[in-house]
Amino acid sequence: MAVSPNWFAREGLALLTDFYELTMIAGYLHEGRADQQVCFEYFFRGMPPHAGFAVSAGLEPFVQYLEHLRFTDEDVAYLRGLNVFQEAFLEYLRDFKPRCTVRAIPEGTVVFPHEPVVQVEGPMFEAQLVETALLNFLNYQTLIATKAARICLAAEGEPVLEFGLRRAHGPDGGLSGSRAAYIGGCSSTSNVLAGKTYGIPLSGTHAHSWVMSFSSELEAFRAFARHYPERCVLLVDTYDTIESGVPNAIRVFKEMHAAGRKVRPAIRLDSGDLAKLSKAAYRLMREAGFDDPLIVASNDLEEDLIADLKRQGARINAWGVGTHLITSHDCPSLGGVYKLVSVYKDGRWTPRMKTTANVEKSTDPCRKQVVRYYNDAGQPVGDVLYEYDEMIPECGAIVGHHRTQQNVHTRLRDTRRSESLMEAVFREGRRVGAAPGIDEIRARATAQIAALADEFKRLRNPEIYKVMLSERIGHAKMKLLESLEP
Amino acid sequence: MAVSPNWFAREGLALLTDFYELTMIAGYLHEGRADQQVCFEYFFRGMPPHAGFAVSAGLEPFVQYLEHLRFTDEDVAYLRGLNVFQEAFLEYLRDFKPRCTVRAIPEGTVVFPHEPVVQVEGPMFEAQLVETALLNFLNYQTLIATKAARICLAAEGEPVLEFGLRRAHGPDGGLSGSRAAYIGGCSSTSNVLAGKTYGIPLSGTHAHSWVMSFSSELEAFRAFARHYPERCVLLVDTYDTIESGVPNAIRVFKEMHAAGRKVRPAIRLDSGDLAKLSKAAYRLMREAGFDDPLIVASNDLEEDLIADLKRQGARINAWGVGTHLITSHDCPSLGGVYKLVSVYKDGRWTPRMKTTANVEKSTDPCRKQVVRYYNDAGQPVGDVLYEYDEMIPECGAIVGHHRTQQNVHTRLRDTRRSESLMEAVFREGRRVGAAPGIDEIRARATAQIAALADEFKRLRNPEIYKVMLSERIGHAKMKLLESLEP
Repeated sequence: MAVSPNWFAREGLALLTDFYELTMIAGYLHEGRADQQVCFEYFFRGMPPHAGFAVSAGLEPFVQYLEHLRFTDEDVAYLRGLNVFQEAFLEYLRDFKPRCTVRAIPEGTVVFPHEPVVQVEGPMFEAQLVETALLNFLNYQTLIATKAARICLAAEGEPVLEFGLRRAHGPDGGLSGSRAAYIGGCSSTSNVLAGKTYGIPLSGTHAHSWVMSFSSELEAFRAFARHYPERCVLLVDTYDTIESGVPNAIRVFKEMHAAGRKVRPAIRLDSGDLAKLSKAAYRLMREAGFDDPLIVASNDLEEDLIADLKRQGARINAWGVGTHLITSHDCPSLGGVYKLVSVYKDGRWTPRMKTTANVEKSTDPCRKQVVRYYNDAGQPVGDVLYEYDEMIPECGAIVGHHRTQQNVHTRLRDTRRSESLMEAVFREGRRVGAAPGIDEIRARATAQIAALADEFKRLRNPEIYKVMLSERIGHAKMKLLESLEP
Repeated sequence: MAVSPNWFAREGLALLTDFYELTMIAGYLHEGRADQQVCFEYFFRGMPPHAGFAVSAGLEPFVQYLEHLRFTDEDVAYLRGLNVFQEAFLEYLRDFKPRCTVRAIPEGTVVFPHEPVVQVEGPMFEAQLVETALLNFLNYQTLIATKAARICLAAEGEPVLEFGLRRAHGPDGGLSGSRAAYIGGCSSTSNVLAGKTYGIPLSGTHAHSWVMSFSSELEAFRAFARHYPERCVLLVDTYDTIESGVPNAIRVFKEMHAAGRKVRPAIRLDSGDLAKLSKAAYRLMREAGFDDPLIVASNDLEEDLIADLKRQGARINAWGVGTHLITSHDCPSLGGVYKLVSVYKDGRWTPRMKTTANVEKSTDPCRKQVVRYYNDAGQPVGDVLYEYDEMIPECGAIVGHHRTQQNVHTRLRDTRRSESLMEAVFREGRRVGAAPGIDEIRARATAQIAALADEFKRLRNPEIYKVMLSERIGHAKMKLLESLEP
């Protein structure tokens, strides 16, 4: 099945940026500093509510955006018309091609606050230009992949079907959101364009309007079964679920079986007391001789509600989730930021950081790499941020420097293995290596979440995963903090 | 300045739909009912939290989508590859062109729960096909226009600058969101692509990274002032706002004035105690001889925080709002729905409704029109939903039927004027009339909000605006409810 290129893989996104990025880069150009080599890192400071881990997503769209990053004649004409920029800048834009190197933690990896997920190293001009798009793609998709992962954990391995398009934030809130939800563990989407664009499996059968448009519910079910015998999930709550919907569905599935169609009886509940109705529907279907009915539930579901339905013994075995997933309703933004960490000056990289009155909000300086350490059960136990060229201990006892407290150290005991997480994904104007397919990214996320210890995965009060600085970065940070104090 | 067509105005969005819409319309085709004439209406049941009114937005994108609604060869090939649909359906898609009639309340109108904002009348096939896109566009843009209107009310007429792109839900969360925020009353956006696509004014100057990339704050400010003397807003909180940022900014503005550049001194605060810092900065700038400094504030602002800053006498006169606006953070979804209200059968339109155990969630039947009544001060006092061909009293005492309580009536006394709100916007495959420009839509919203009485505009516990049924629809509803009871 041909999968069309997605919306990120095309020209015309160069202006998807905040205006101040353009005023700044024009300023750098006029100052003769457009080519100054700098390093910025993308990270987030806080988890979505109650989350013990996040699932990184949005990287491949960012790489596709970089591959196509050009200013079109139309873009330049528009900017000229603003009467803000000098011709020299507009001419520079015409010839612009990205030259930066991007390193990143692969998409679909479990990530934590304060660690660099994406690192952009290159000329000041373009490191600054790409900030907004990077934040836009990574913040939203990581938010949704993480929400999806939590919902899938609550569903305990049962399929979660993403149904969010009608409540998503515009067409792309739907498209990017469906992509991220699938990476985070959803089984399918209702969004046909997302199916076509990204190769995500589709699900969906019929709405209440289908039933209402026939003279009876039974006739509506029979018609649906006739046209879609292989994917017949009947929506049973248009009139009265237990008195009418489920009995009519049973009758239609019996007719199909009698006609030799051995399909799995399947219904969907979309309203009312899902715990009670699912148990009653299950009982009726069992009594009708169906051993293993599929009961899909939907209606404003989210992870806590799913966990509560499970606690009540609801007989639901597939979960349709829309609004809460696609908008991350309880927290619809991830506050990822993109900060300057190093500047190449006088022949060497010089660490930079932003200080604030709140030391928690100070950034960590230096071009970094992220090393994850594992215990003997293969579970990650902590990440250490090393400087890019540091010698890295591979296993054993690992000592990390506290991110904010001077001379406070944490020890990871008995680590058995380590893994350097960041890899180059874009260099000299082109991607490095082959583009990962979405199923590869999703499989990575699934494996990563499976490897994580339970205490990071519970829905409330998860354990806080350790992210530490290497001794060298810790010292660089403290030295910078002292030098910057008034 | 040439404004490029927006993303909605192109082919390739036909598949932006839920999969069940396609399974249903294929079913209708095979049932020989694709051409059955039906009428669906879009409305929402509840306001965003604390809102006394909503501002409709997203209509023009929906009309543009309809103008370009075709299934491409690639779309059809993708659907064929799913092995779900019959060839007859795929052939039908190839030749598909919309024939429906769309009536709607103009974009930028103040609207209320339960009234039809958009009405789609036409063949079942396409009335169902367009559901998801309509919901996606209208739900999100109405949500954001409404949030923007609340924020602008809190800012009491001072400019609100939309800065949300980096936290928006994907590129289009940014684009559609910037559009809706502007309609709702924002003065500008930081999103350059939204500026180009929709002709929205841009704002934005520089970030902390600009200041950090120079060897001193003063040098950074001087460089910025040199390149952008006409739009020089200096970000003063990179190091210490009062000890360093504001004094350096004052020095640079004095230098500009001394050089004959009579620009308005302007600074931006992006962290810390905005009330205290703005007052201190204002005092320093007044002492420096600047009578009317512009003080822009940003940092997780929303309507309640702005109202609270005003209560504290903060010296802020422009408001940069990002995350909370572009995601409608306290409620990131509007639950608009699209329901079948009438079916053309045996030569006449027959009302339809969905009943549920909860009478509040039952829909109102009949093809409707919305009539708004005004008092002698020109303020709207209540809306009545009439059947499409009903005789409508123009003014005087108006009696409306309660939406859910049988034989309960409400009277609007002494109305002086009425206005029928819905108008045809799409018919026979093309738009009706000229496309409204975004400034026209925004001006409509501004005028509509201005005309609304204060009790609907307060930030907490607003008065509930009256939306009633005509006697005829009220009776039709009660009759249908009785006939549908088991």
